[in-house]
Amino acid sequence: MPHNAKYRLMTPGPTPVPDEVLEVLSRPVRYHRSDEARGILRQAIEGLRHVFQTNQEVVLLTSSGTGAMEAAVVNTLTAGSTALVIESGKFSQRWSSLCQSVNARIHTLEVPWGKHADPQELTETLRKHPEIEVVFATLCETSTGVVHDIKTLAQVVGETSALFVVDGISGVGADRCYMDSWGIDLLVAGSQKALMMPPGLAFVAVSSKAWERIQQNPARGYYFDLCRYRDKLSIPDTPFTPAHTLIAGLTSCLSRIQQQGGGIEHVWERTEQLASACRSGIEAMGLKLFASRPSAGVTAVQVPEQIDGIALLARLRERFNLVPAGGQEQLRGRIVRIAHMGYTDALDVVTALAGLELVLYELRYPLSLGEGGQAALQVFANQADVQGRE
Amino acid sequence: MPHNAKYRLMTPGPTPVPDEVLEVLSRPVRYHRSDEARGILRQAIEGLRHVFQTNQEVVLLTSSGTGAMEAAVVNTLTAGSTALVIESGKFSQRWSSLCQSVNARIHTLEVPWGKHADPQELTETLRKHPEIEVVFATLCETSTGVVHDIKTLAQVVGETSALFVVDGISGVGADRCYMDSWGIDLLVAGSQKALMMPPGLAFVAVSSKAWERIQQNPARGYYFDLCRYRDKLSIPDTPFTPAHTLIAGLTSCLSRIQQQGGGIEHVWERTEQLASACRSGIEAMGLKLFASRPSAGVTAVQVPEQIDGIALLARLRERFNLVPAGGQEQLRGRIVRIAHMGYTDALDVVTALAGLELVLYELRYPLSLGEGGQAALQVFANQADVQGRE
Repeated sequence: MPHNAKYRLMTPGPTPVPDEVLEVLSRPVRYHRSDEARGILRQAIEGLRHVFQTNQEVVLLTSSGTGAMEAAVVNTLTAGSTALVIESGKFSQRWSSLCQSVNARIHTLEVPWGKHADPQELTETLRKHPEIEVVFATLCETSTGVVHDIKTLAQVVGETSALFVVDGISGVGADRCYMDSWGIDLLVAGSQKALMMPPGLAFVAVSSKAWERIQQNPARGYYFDLCRYRDKLSIPDTPFTPAHTLIAGLTSCLSRIQQQGGGIEHVWERTEQLASACRSGIEAMGLKLFASRPSAGVTAVQVPEQIDGIALLARLRERFNLVPAGGQEQLRGRIVRIAHMGYTDALDVVTALAGLELVLYELRYPLSLGEGGQAALQVFANQADVQGRE
Repeated sequence: MPHNAKYRLMTPGPTPVPDEVLEVLSRPVRYHRSDEARGILRQAIEGLRHVFQTNQEVVLLTSSGTGAMEAAVVNTLTAGSTALVIESGKFSQRWSSLCQSVNARIHTLEVPWGKHADPQELTETLRKHPEIEVVFATLCETSTGVVHDIKTLAQVVGETSALFVVDGISGVGADRCYMDSWGIDLLVAGSQKALMMPPGLAFVAVSSKAWERIQQNPARGYYFDLCRYRDKLSIPDTPFTPAHTLIAGLTSCLSRIQQQGGGIEHVWERTEQLASACRSGIEAMGLKLFASRPSAGVTAVQVPEQIDGIALLARLRERFNLVPAGGQEQLRGRIVRIAHMGYTDALDVVTALAGLELVLYELRYPLSLGEGGQAALQVFANQADVQGRE
C-alpha cells in the first residue's frame, strides 16, 4: 500500500531536486546535435568549473558516479602501475576494487570507519613507497559522514610526483573544495548529491599534469576513455549520445548556484551552517556524532545502544515518510545519516530533528522533546543569516 | 534567436517521449533503495523481456548505448580472443573499435554502407576462421537505415560454437527481433530510440550460453562487469546508483507497449506500416531509398544530385523546425534519415513528407506537390488499420 504521508528525502544521494529543475526534466525531447544542445552543454561545463573551482577541463559522463571513478582509474593506471588508496569506508574501498580491476599494484592507507586520514601517515607512506604513481582519496566518505582534510593531503602528495585523485561524488558542492589552488589532479563528482539533480550524470575534472599522464596510457578503455571526451570539448560535444535532458536540468541547477551572490562560496557557507545546526541539535538530544571530522553535507549520528537502528529508520519512514539513510555494511543499524546538502534549507534540518525526536521518544529513548530543534534554531539565530532561497 | 515554430523531432534517436512519460520524469525524486524503487525496476525488467522476446536476464545500465556495447565486448572477449565484426556503417564500426580496445583479434566482414550482410558470406567467413569466438552484428544500422537479416545470420552463427552479439540500439522495439527463438546471445538496446525515452539508459540481455563464457572471463572491467549486475537481479537491485528517475519513465513507456493488444507484435506491425507508408511517399516524390533492406524504424532517403543535402536539412529546420537526421561521415549531405519508431504515428509520417515536399519544391526539385503524402495515405487506407494511440 503506498504511503500517503508527505515524502521527505534526506538521504545523502539522491537529494531533493528543485521544482523548476523538475519542470526542465519534463520538457519534450529535442535533438542533441544542435546549437541549442551545444549551448546547454557549454553552460553546464562552465557551471561545473565554478563549482569545482577549476580552470581545467571538465568532462561530463552519462553514468553513475562509479563510472566517473572508473574513468579516473582506467585513464591514469595501467597493469603494473602503483597506486595508493586512502581507505576509510565503503566508497573509498571502491577505489581499491577499481585499481584491482586494472591489475595495478595497490598500497592501502587504512583509516578506521568514522575517522579521517592523518596527513602525517600519508607523508610516511609516500616516503616509504616512492614508486606510488597515483593517490586515491575521498572528499566526503558518504558511508561514514567524514570529510577528509583534502587541502593538507593534497599538499603532501604535491611534494611527490604522484597524481592526486579525489572522489568528490557526495562532497563537491557541499564541502569546501578548491580543485586548482589545492592541487587536485582529478576530481570526480555525481549529479545526484549537492548538485541537486537525479542520478545519471557524473563528472571528472582533469589537471594538465594528469592529461600528460593520461595521454601516455596505452589502454584507457573505450566508453570511459577521457581523451575521447576531451577531443569533443572545443565544440563542445560528447563522443556518445549523452543523457542530454539531464544535462539541461543540471544547467538549471548550476544557474541556481551561480546566481547566488558569492556563488559556490555562499552555498558552502550555508551548507556549513546547516551542518552546524544539525550537529547542535543531535548533541542536544544526547546523541553522538559518528564522524571524527563531519562533512558539511551529511551528519552521521550514532544510534544509541538501547535503540534498534533498523527499527528507528523503519518507524521514521512509517510515521512521517521521513527518509534519511541508515548505515552500510558493518555500520548497518548503527548509524543514521541525515543529508543537508543541495536543495535543503534550515527548516528541513529542523524537520529532520523533530521527526527523529518524536520517534526516539516513542521508542522510549530518554530525551526532552524539542531540545534538538531548539539548539538548531539557536545556531540559525546566532550566526549571520546565510539561508537564502535554496 | 530561438526558433518559434512547432518543434518536430524526427531523428532516429532521440525520439519523441509520450506526454505521460514526461510527467513521470518531472516527479520529485525518491530514494532508490526502497520497495517502491525495486518494484519499478522489476516492472522495467519484465517489460524489457517482453520487448526483447526473451526469458533471459536483462541488465539495465546507466550509460549511453555505447556503454552497453562496451559491456557486451569486455564481458565476452579478453586480450587475444578472436572476434568477427559485420561492418556496414558507422555504428557497426564501433564494434571493431571496442574489440580493438580489449586487444582482441578481429576479422571483419565488410558490407558496403547502405547494403545488408549476405548470410552466405558469413557462412564462408566462419568456415574459413573456425577460431572465431564471438560474432558482432547490428539489427538496424542507424547510419544507413539498413536492417540486417538477423534471423538468418543467427542461424549461421548457431551452426558454430561462437556467440552471436547484436546491437539493437535503434532496432529493438521497431524492427522485429525475437532474441530467444532466433538464437541471439547478447542483445543490446538503448532508451532513446523505439523505447520512447530520453537517453541515459542502456540494456543488455544475456543468454545462458553467454553467461557461461562471461563467468570464465577473468577481466570484465568494473562498471560494465555484467556479473555485478546479475548478482543484484534477484532482489532486484543495481550495483551502483542507477538513473532511477529514467527507469521510472521507462516503465511507463514499456506499459504503453504491453497494454497494446498483441504488445510488441502490435508495435512492430504498426511500425512496419509507418515505414511502408513513408517509403511509398518517398518513391512517389521520385526520390530513392538508400538502404537495400530498409529498417522499420527509420527511412534513409538519397538526396537528389542537384540538391545540396546540408541546405535541405537546414531549410527544413529553418522553415518548419522539422528535424530529421542527415548522413554521417561519408554520407554527410548525401542522405536524409526520417525516423518513424516509438511515439510516432501515421500523421507524423504525412507531416514529414509534406515538409520535405515543400522544401524540395522551394529548392526547385521537380515534383508534383502532394503526391508523396497521397501515396502514404493510400498505404494507410489500403492496409488494415493498425495505427493505435501510440
